[in-house]
Amino acid sequence: MGSALLDWRMAAIRIIGFDPGLRHMGWGVIRQEGSRLSHVAHGTIESGVKGDLAARLKLLFEGACAVLAEHAPDEAAVEQTFVNKDAVATLKLGHARAIALLAPALSQIPVSEYAPNQVKKSLVGAGLAEKGQVMAMVKRILPQCGVVSPDAADALAIAITHAHHRKAAATLLRLRA
Amino acid sequence: MGSALLDWRMAAIRIIGFDPGLRHMGWGVIRQEGSRLSHVAHGTIESGVKGDLAARLKLLFEGACAVLAEHAPDEAAVEQTFVNKDAVATLKLGHARAIALLAPALSQIPVSEYAPNQVKKSLVGAGLAEKGQVMAMVKRILPQCGVVSPDAADALAIAITHAHHRKAAATLLRLRA
Repeated sequence: MGSALLDWRMAAIRIIGFDPGLRHMGWGVIRQEGSRLSHVAHGTIESGVKGDLAARLKLLFEGACAVLAEHAPDEAAVEQTFVNKDAVATLKLGHARAIALLAPALSQIPVSEYAPNQVKKSLVGAGLAEKGQVMAMVKRILPQCGVVSPDAADALAIAITHAHHRKAAATLLRLRA
Repeated sequence: MGSALLDWRMAAIRIIGFDPGLRHMGWGVIRQEGSRLSHVAHGTIESGVKGDLAARLKLLFEGACAVLAEHAPDEAAVEQTFVNKDAVATLKLGHARAIALLAPALSQIPVSEYAPNQVKKSLVGAGLAEKGQVMAMVKRILPQCGVVSPDAADALAIAITHAHHRKAAATLLRLRA
């Protein structure tokens, strides 16, 4: 059974990362095959600034569902929200995160969550890395990605973090086998 | 056009209210015909306490969609979140609210939002009314409602608040006609 699990963890899969935001929701899809990562696609879903909250959430949800349908990822990863002192901003982010968690869950795609410092540590090696360093590492790991907006780069970074965590788990299984 | 709008506002409609919560989401459906309100149904959608956040949001969403399919409301009303100092609780509530806003929006049902003190003022006449007073007024306005949990009572109170706001708008149109 350990071996079957190992095979499963080493098989090629697609991972989608979401960087939730009420105005812009970044997304990025990568492919992982063993230790090799490659870029598939990325983009940003816009909810606009006009319209009531319900209509904006609907736009984000429909956008996320369209991306999932087009790229058929096997697993999803979403950034955990950094709870800060601005309660109104925290609340808005909570609304957007719910969409990023719900859309893959409805498609029976397992969803993992990573804290911002886990993402930074996974890419740059330090939990307090700057935004620019994360962007630079995304471009180094996925040289085919081309021009990436900050939101989409964060989403790709979250997908890469999930790939690293899966790989670490696979290595652990191999050592135990 | 004013007259058509007036007719529309006076026609019998069904209103669903949602009291969002990540663990329990209260809902209540009422019927409004002119100034007459009657109880249709109420209940609570449970997400459980186990399972990851994505799975819990999926349960809430599927529950809300089932209620909307069964009771076919024309309009929806959701309580605005009271942003408090507990950022983690605020974030959780944000996730649950997103579901309460999204589910009707996806069914093309207009969604209105009311602050907790608007709900209290609409039912009890005072923005700082106690929970027990709101429950008592729900039972007085909808004597057929029977036993109601606190979450479902809050949801019925939100639906009643929306009915009062619609009625006030209709009265205003009549005065102008």
